[in-house]
Amino acid sequence: MTYRIDEDPLAEVRSARAEILHLAEPQDPCVQLSLSLLGAPTTADLLSQRKPLDDVLTERAEDLAELAAHTWQEWAQQMQTRIKNWAGRKRPYTFEREMEIAGRLGAWVMIPEDPDWPEQLHDLGADEPFALWGRGDRTLLQHLSLQGSVAVVGSRDTTSYGNSATTHLAGDLAAQGYTIVSGGAFGIDAVAHRSALVTAAGPLSTVALMAGGVDRPYPKHNEQLLSEVIQRGLLLSEVPLSYQPTRWRFLQRNRLIAALASVTVVVEARWRSGALNTAHHALEIGREVRVVPGQIFSPNSEGCHRLLRDGLAQITTSASDITESLNQHLQPEQEHLFESPETSEIGQLSEAEQRIWDALPLRNFAATEHLGVMAGVEGRNLLLGLSQLAQKGLAEQTAQGWRKSKAYKKAT
Amino acid sequence: MTYRIDEDPLAEVRSARAEILHLAEPQDPCVQLSLSLLGAPTTADLLSQRKPLDDVLTERAEDLAELAAHTWQEWAQQMQTRIKNWAGRKRPYTFEREMEIAGRLGAWVMIPEDPDWPEQLHDLGADEPFALWGRGDRTLLQHLSLQGSVAVVGSRDTTSYGNSATTHLAGDLAAQGYTIVSGGAFGIDAVAHRSALVTAAGPLSTVALMAGGVDRPYPKHNEQLLSEVIQRGLLLSEVPLSYQPTRWRFLQRNRLIAALASVTVVVEARWRSGALNTAHHALEIGREVRVVPGQIFSPNSEGCHRLLRDGLAQITTSASDITESLNQHLQPEQEHLFESPETSEIGQLSEAEQRIWDALPLRNFAATEHLGVMAGVEGRNLLLGLSQLAQKGLAEQTAQGWRKSKAYKKAT
Repeated sequence: MTYRIDEDPLAEVRSARAEILHLAEPQDPCVQLSLSLLGAPTTADLLSQRKPLDDVLTERAEDLAELAAHTWQEWAQQMQTRIKNWAGRKRPYTFEREMEIAGRLGAWVMIPEDPDWPEQLHDLGADEPFALWGRGDRTLLQHLSLQGSVAVVGSRDTTSYGNSATTHLAGDLAAQGYTIVSGGAFGIDAVAHRSALVTAAGPLSTVALMAGGVDRPYPKHNEQLLSEVIQRGLLLSEVPLSYQPTRWRFLQRNRLIAALASVTVVVEARWRSGALNTAHHALEIGREVRVVPGQIFSPNSEGCHRLLRDGLAQITTSASDITESLNQHLQPEQEHLFESPETSEIGQLSEAEQRIWDALPLRNFAATEHLGVMAGVEGRNLLLGLSQLAQKGLAEQTAQGWRKSKAYKKAT
Repeated sequence: MTYRIDEDPLAEVRSARAEILHLAEPQDPCVQLSLSLLGAPTTADLLSQRKPLDDVLTERAEDLAELAAHTWQEWAQQMQTRIKNWAGRKRPYTFEREMEIAGRLGAWVMIPEDPDWPEQLHDLGADEPFALWGRGDRTLLQHLSLQGSVAVVGSRDTTSYGNSATTHLAGDLAAQGYTIVSGGAFGIDAVAHRSALVTAAGPLSTVALMAGGVDRPYPKHNEQLLSEVIQRGLLLSEVPLSYQPTRWRFLQRNRLIAALASVTVVVEARWRSGALNTAHHALEIGREVRVVPGQIFSPNSEGCHRLLRDGLAQITTSASDITESLNQHLQPEQEHLFESPETSEIGQLSEAEQRIWDALPLRNFAATEHLGVMAGVEGRNLLLGLSQLAQKGLAEQTAQGWRKSKAYKKAT
């Protein structure tokens, strides 16, 4: 359990990245570029002013030549500004001391170079965290997969409906083995974590992303809940130990929640809400967003309805909505299990029918509108085509949408 | 008020179409073809067996030659079958007698040839009703416009939430002068009519489509409400006086509700519900469908959520959602009231920004997804493009969506 620096083959990089967490702002493209061009140790030397920038420019001229001249010159200028601006942050820092404190808490620090780094965080590109602090059984990290994780987020002030919907969705998902990712906050977040802890059937029930250090679970009121998360799930943060959460850190933290899960479900959110911020992060990196509908008189559902109205989110009314959509991305190789209908029958279809047929999934389901987009057939023609295919026994409509008819599915 | 056959220049056609309502099934393509090729009097003569089909084929050979030979031969064959099948429906019929009974009720019969026939019914094509019976002040018909009408429909068994949402939406729309179209049934329909009667600011508050004759408002329980509709709105039906509503007639009636209004709003609908049938009729003729969201535990909202999930409907949470969408279709000529920004500024935009700029509405609002489709720009690029345009003061985001910035709108 205790970290032994001499047993860590990545100690030099880990120690540098852990130090950078103290010196740099997350999501800094200039630091990210430095990390990839010059590596973590040199970047830490620069930011801590152990090494002047000019020396690095000379020593590493070859690496910098990978960039166009004006790019690295611009980078050097920005880096100089940052070193100056962040100089006030310098503190006597020793990685050993920090790991000693961490060891007492059972906290650990992981870096992108680690084999158990959640690879879905790479999707953040330049916004990928420099390192992540964690508490909980680190071996659980291997189960924190993109397809196995669903983010469930929402307002701090909830209604009894919001709490019930969260219990229902997060509980059902966890019972099917999915990991529930959230922010550990009051309200929807807390209910999501708690429901996951209660019903979890998989190895990793829930992951809470903190906006402050993992040594000070926040909010205080959720201390008991978050200590259960540490015991049976994971507490993660890109902020070093002892740091307080700030408004800005809450917003930055939201991108990590969005990136860890393949779907972000917003249960309740007011017109302006932090949960919408998480949803927008999810959309920016191409993750799916789903919202729980509510009554039109409930201000707590206004943000959800807004996402629906703007066409940015899909509706969800049950865990199965979400798992079906997740399964759709999984195991495409299983499609060959189903045989195609007689070529002659398909050949006799009209052009529109043929195109719709091609767009129909074999397993799972597609919404009519989605089929329209895939097939390039619209409106009345789409509906007519589908009804023709259904009549010919080639397509079937279920509660979840359209697919190729079961008649044509046969295990090989 | 009394109908005088000798004062009606359309008496021959009206009388023929009124008789056809007794003889033929609505939505019969064969009868519709006969009406347009041979006219109503000949069609009535055929269906009532006053004139043998063979005589008509000879006499009207020239008109039938408009069709390809195999088409009119097929039509003649189908017509023969219908004449035989519907022979049992023949009754001694006199239009004068029917109009006398109608006169006592204040009922009237209108036909597509009338100048006050609601022209939006033409969108039904072959499914356009042969004629429509009505009660109420017929001069109100001129106000039954597509853009001025909203259909509000839903389950017979409602929740208090469904009733409140209906009161809210239908009441607000009627207060803005819109006509509320519905089916006069228990539940959502009744609440919609009633709310419209209470708040109506326009000349035509509400229109109820009956599945039986307008002389027997159905259901009996809503008699008082429907008599108020007759006094201050309109009661319409394609079924003749004295006919009972049947299950099939309810379904056929739904297409008329959908066709009369530009938007069909489904407030509450179970997984299988007649209201969904109306929504599908609306979609088939390219009308917009909007649904009111509800709690995920409410079976009464399952049908609404289903339409949302299938991408067939938009969400609505207030009357303004609907009116904005209606206004978007209205008065495009007013767009010239707004001047374009300096050509130079637009010229400097990136290709994606330029395309998004072109897609942005000047008045009203567009959802982000809609803009993406219009502009052919997707995902992150769309969001980035919009944020760039907003930063340049060229686009603005409001609660209702995106539009060109006000800074560039100036009345001439």
